[in-house]
Amino acid sequence: MSAFAKARERVGFSPDKMRKQNLFDSPNMFCDVYGLEPGQAQSAHAHAGSDKIYFVLEGTADVQIGEETRRLEAGELAHAGPGVAHAVANPGPGRLALLVFMAPKP
Amino acid sequence: MSAFAKARERVGFSPDKMRKQNLFDSPNMFCDVYGLEPGQAQSAHAHAGSDKIYFVLEGTADVQIGEETRRLEAGELAHAGPGVAHAVANPGPGRLALLVFMAPKP
Repeated sequence: MSAFAKARERVGFSPDKMRKQNLFDSPNMFCDVYGLEPGQAQSAHAHAGSDKIYFVLEGTADVQIGEETRRLEAGELAHAGPGVAHAVANPGPGRLALLVFMAPKP
Repeated sequence: MSAFAKARERVGFSPDKMRKQNLFDSPNMFCDVYGLEPGQAQSAHAHAGSDKIYFVLEGTADVQIGEETRRLEAGELAHAGPGVAHAVANPGPGRLALLVFMAPKP
Protein backbone atom coordinates (compact mmCIF):
# COMPACT_ATOMS: atom_id res chain seq x y z
CA MET A 1 0.00 0.00 0.00
CA SER A 2 1.43 3.37 -1.03
CA ALA A 3 1.56 6.29 1.40
CA PHE A 4 -0.03 8.48 -1.32
CA ALA A 5 -3.36 8.30 -3.20
CA LYS A 6 -5.40 10.31 -5.70
CA ALA A 7 -8.99 10.04 -4.50
CA ARG A 8 -10.77 10.53 -7.84
CA GLU A 9 -8.64 7.95 -9.62
CA ARG A 10 -9.56 5.35 -7.02
CA VAL A 11 -13.34 5.77 -6.75
CA GLY A 12 -15.36 2.97 -8.35
CA PHE A 13 -19.06 2.51 -9.11
CA SER A 14 -21.24 -0.55 -9.56
CA PRO A 15 -24.80 -0.79 -10.92
CA ASP A 16 -25.64 -3.31 -8.16
CA LYS A 17 -24.68 -1.43 -4.99
CA MET A 18 -22.44 1.17 -3.41
CA ARG A 19 -18.79 0.38 -4.03
CA LYS A 20 -15.99 0.73 -1.44
CA GLN A 21 -12.29 0.98 -2.28
CA ASN A 22 -9.68 1.07 0.46
CA LEU A 23 -7.01 3.78 0.29
CA PHE A 24 -5.18 3.37 3.63
CA ASP A 25 -5.53 0.73 6.31
CA SER A 26 -4.08 0.35 9.81
CA PRO A 27 -5.33 -0.94 13.17
CA ASN A 28 -5.80 2.70 14.29
CA MET A 29 -7.70 3.99 11.26
CA PHE A 30 -8.73 3.21 7.73
CA CYS A 31 -9.69 5.42 4.80
CA ASP A 32 -12.03 4.25 2.04
CA VAL A 33 -13.54 5.99 -0.96
CA TYR A 34 -17.19 5.12 -1.64
CA GLY A 35 -18.91 5.44 -5.01
CA LEU A 36 -22.73 5.63 -5.06
CA GLU A 37 -24.87 5.80 -8.18
CA PRO A 38 -28.10 7.84 -7.84
CA GLY A 39 -30.52 5.98 -5.55
CA GLN A 40 -27.83 3.87 -3.86
CA ALA A 41 -27.39 4.07 -0.08
CA GLN A 42 -25.69 2.67 3.00
CA SER A 43 -28.45 2.05 5.53
CA ALA A 44 -28.33 3.23 9.14
CA HIS A 45 -25.92 1.41 11.43
CA ALA A 46 -23.63 2.14 14.39
CA HIS A 47 -20.20 1.00 15.61
CA ALA A 48 -19.94 0.54 19.37
CA GLY A 49 -16.32 1.63 19.77
CA SER A 50 -15.42 3.56 16.62
CA ASP A 51 -15.81 7.03 15.13
CA LYS A 52 -16.59 7.63 11.45
CA ILE A 53 -16.16 10.77 9.35
CA TYR A 54 -17.66 11.27 5.88
CA PHE A 55 -16.25 13.86 3.44
CA VAL A 56 -18.14 14.60 0.21
CA LEU A 57 -15.69 14.63 -2.72
CA GLU A 58 -18.24 14.99 -5.52
CA GLY A 59 -22.02 15.01 -5.85
CA THR A 60 -24.77 15.34 -3.25
CA ALA A 61 -25.22 13.19 -0.11
CA ASP A 62 -28.12 12.81 2.30
CA VAL A 63 -26.25 12.01 5.52
CA GLN A 64 -27.97 10.88 8.71
CA ILE A 65 -26.14 11.31 12.04
CA GLY A 66 -28.22 10.22 15.03
CA GLU A 67 -31.64 11.86 14.67
CA GLU A 68 -30.55 14.46 12.09
CA THR A 69 -30.33 14.15 8.31
CA ARG A 70 -28.72 16.87 6.19
CA ARG A 71 -28.09 17.30 2.49
CA LEU A 72 -24.34 17.79 1.95
CA GLU A 73 -22.45 18.99 -1.11
CA ALA A 74 -18.78 18.66 -2.10
CA GLY A 75 -16.46 19.94 0.64
CA GLU A 76 -18.80 19.13 3.55
CA LEU A 77 -18.16 16.64 6.37
CA ALA A 78 -20.16 14.69 8.94
CA HIS A 79 -19.03 12.87 12.10
CA ALA A 80 -20.63 9.94 13.94
CA GLY A 81 -19.23 9.10 17.37
CA PRO A 82 -19.21 5.61 18.89
CA GLY A 83 -22.71 4.12 19.07
CA VAL A 84 -24.27 6.91 16.98
CA ALA A 85 -26.43 5.69 14.07
CA HIS A 86 -25.33 6.94 10.67
CA ALA A 87 -26.36 6.43 7.05
CA VAL A 88 -25.71 7.95 3.64
CA ALA A 89 -27.72 8.03 0.41
CA ASN A 90 -27.24 9.55 -3.02
CA PRO A 91 -30.39 11.49 -4.01
CA GLY A 92 -28.91 12.16 -7.46
CA PRO A 93 -28.98 13.31 -10.15
CA GLY A 94 -25.19 12.83 -10.33
CA ARG A 95 -22.82 10.23 -8.95
CA LEU A 96 -21.66 10.59 -5.33
CA ALA A 97 -18.04 10.06 -4.23
CA LEU A 98 -17.24 10.09 -0.49
CA LEU A 99 -14.10 9.73 1.58
CA VAL A 100 -14.76 7.68 4.73
CA PHE A 101 -12.42 7.66 7.74
CA MET A 102 -13.00 5.23 10.59
CA ALA A 103 -11.05 4.90 13.86
CA PRO A 104 -10.25 2.46 15.23
CA LYS A 105 -10.80 -0.29 12.69
CA PRO A 106 -13.70 -2.32 14.14
CA MET B 1 -19.54 20.60 18.51
CA SER B 2 -21.85 19.97 15.54
CA ALA B 3 -21.84 16.63 13.73
CA PHE B 4 -21.60 18.57 10.42
CA ALA B 5 -19.01 21.00 9.00
CA LYS B 6 -18.24 22.91 5.80
CA ALA B 7 -14.47 22.66 5.36
CA ARG B 8 -13.89 25.85 3.36
CA GLU B 9 -15.91 28.01 5.75
CA ARG B 10 -13.73 26.84 8.64
CA VAL B 11 -10.22 27.21 7.22
CA GLY B 12 -8.24 30.11 8.63
CA PHE B 13 -4.92 31.73 7.72
CA SER B 14 -2.39 33.74 9.70
CA PRO B 15 0.58 35.78 8.45
CA ASP B 16 2.70 34.42 11.34
CA LYS B 17 2.37 30.65 10.93
CA MET B 18 0.21 27.78 9.75
CA ARG B 19 -3.24 27.91 11.34
CA LYS B 20 -5.16 24.87 12.66
CA GLN B 21 -8.91 24.79 13.26
CA ASN B 22 -10.57 21.75 14.82
CA LEU B 23 -13.67 20.33 13.10
CA PHE B 24 -14.29 17.11 15.08
CA ASP B 25 -12.64 15.77 18.21
CA SER B 26 -12.88 12.48 20.07
CA PRO B 27 -10.44 10.19 21.94
CA ASN B 28 -10.42 7.88 18.87
CA MET B 29 -9.81 10.50 16.19
CA PHE B 30 -9.74 14.19 15.47
CA CYS B 31 -10.14 16.16 12.27
CA ASP B 32 -8.55 19.58 11.75
CA VAL B 33 -8.37 21.93 8.80
CA TYR B 34 -4.98 23.60 8.29
CA GLY B 35 -4.43 26.87 6.43
CA LEU B 36 -0.92 27.62 5.11
CA GLU B 37 0.12 30.80 3.35
CA PRO B 38 2.82 30.39 0.67
CA GLY B 39 6.13 29.50 2.34
CA GLN B 40 4.55 28.25 5.58
CA ALA B 41 5.21 24.67 6.74
CA GLN B 42 4.81 22.08 9.45
CA SER B 43 8.26 20.60 10.01
CA ALA B 44 8.98 16.87 10.12
CA HIS B 45 7.79 15.02 13.20
CA ALA B 46 6.35 11.61 14.14
CA HIS B 47 3.74 10.25 16.57
CA ALA B 48 4.71 6.98 18.25
CA GLY B 49 1.25 5.47 18.46
CA SER B 50 -0.93 7.38 15.99
CA ASP B 51 -1.71 7.47 12.27
CA LYS B 52 -2.18 10.72 10.34
CA ILE B 53 -3.83 11.34 6.97
CA TYR B 54 -3.56 14.58 4.98
CA PHE B 55 -6.12 15.51 2.29
CA VAL B 56 -5.46 18.52 0.05
CA LEU B 57 -8.60 20.65 -0.19
CA GLU B 58 -7.13 23.54 -2.15
CA GLY B 59 -3.70 24.59 -3.38
CA THR B 60 -0.44 22.68 -3.66
CA ALA B 61 1.34 20.77 -0.87
CA ASP B 62 4.83 19.32 -0.62
CA VAL B 63 4.21 16.35 1.68
CA GLN B 64 6.97 14.26 3.20
CA ILE B 65 6.15 10.73 4.41
CA GLY B 66 9.20 8.86 5.73
CA GLU B 67 11.96 9.24 3.11
CA GLU B 68 9.66 10.34 0.27
CA THR B 69 8.40 13.84 -0.58
CA ARG B 70 5.72 14.39 -3.21
CA ARG B 71 3.97 17.45 -4.59
CA LEU B 72 0.20 16.97 -4.11
CA GLU B 73 -2.71 18.89 -5.61
CA ALA B 74 -6.36 19.16 -4.52
CA GLY B 75 -7.98 15.73 -4.12
CA GLU B 76 -4.77 13.90 -3.17
CA LEU B 77 -4.03 12.17 0.16
CA ALA B 78 -1.02 11.02 2.13
CA HIS B 79 -0.79 8.64 5.11
CA ALA B 80 1.86 8.41 7.85
CA GLY B 81 1.72 5.37 10.11
CA PRO B 82 2.87 5.33 13.75
CA GLY B 83 6.47 6.45 14.12
CA VAL B 84 6.77 7.58 10.47
CA ALA B 85 8.18 11.10 10.01
CA HIS B 86 5.89 13.47 8.13
CA ALA B 87 5.89 17.12 7.15
CA VAL B 88 3.97 19.50 4.90
CA ALA B 89 4.87 22.77 3.20
CA ASN B 90 3.10 25.21 0.90
CA PRO B 91 5.36 25.97 -2.11
CA GLY B 92 2.82 28.55 -3.36
CA PRO B 93 1.86 30.56 -5.28
CA GLY B 94 -1.64 30.10 -3.77
CA ARG B 95 -2.92 29.38 -0.30
CA LEU B 96 -2.99 25.75 0.88
CA ALA B 97 -5.95 24.22 2.77
CA LEU B 98 -5.60 20.69 4.16
CA LEU B 99 -7.84 18.32 6.06
CA VAL B 100 -5.89 16.40 8.71
CA PHE B 101 -7.17 13.22 10.38
CA MET B 102 -5.32 11.70 13.31
CA ALA B 103 -6.09 8.48 15.21
CA PRO B 104 -5.94 8.01 18.06
CA LYS B 105 -5.62 11.47 19.58
CA PRO B 106 -2.08 11.55 21.04
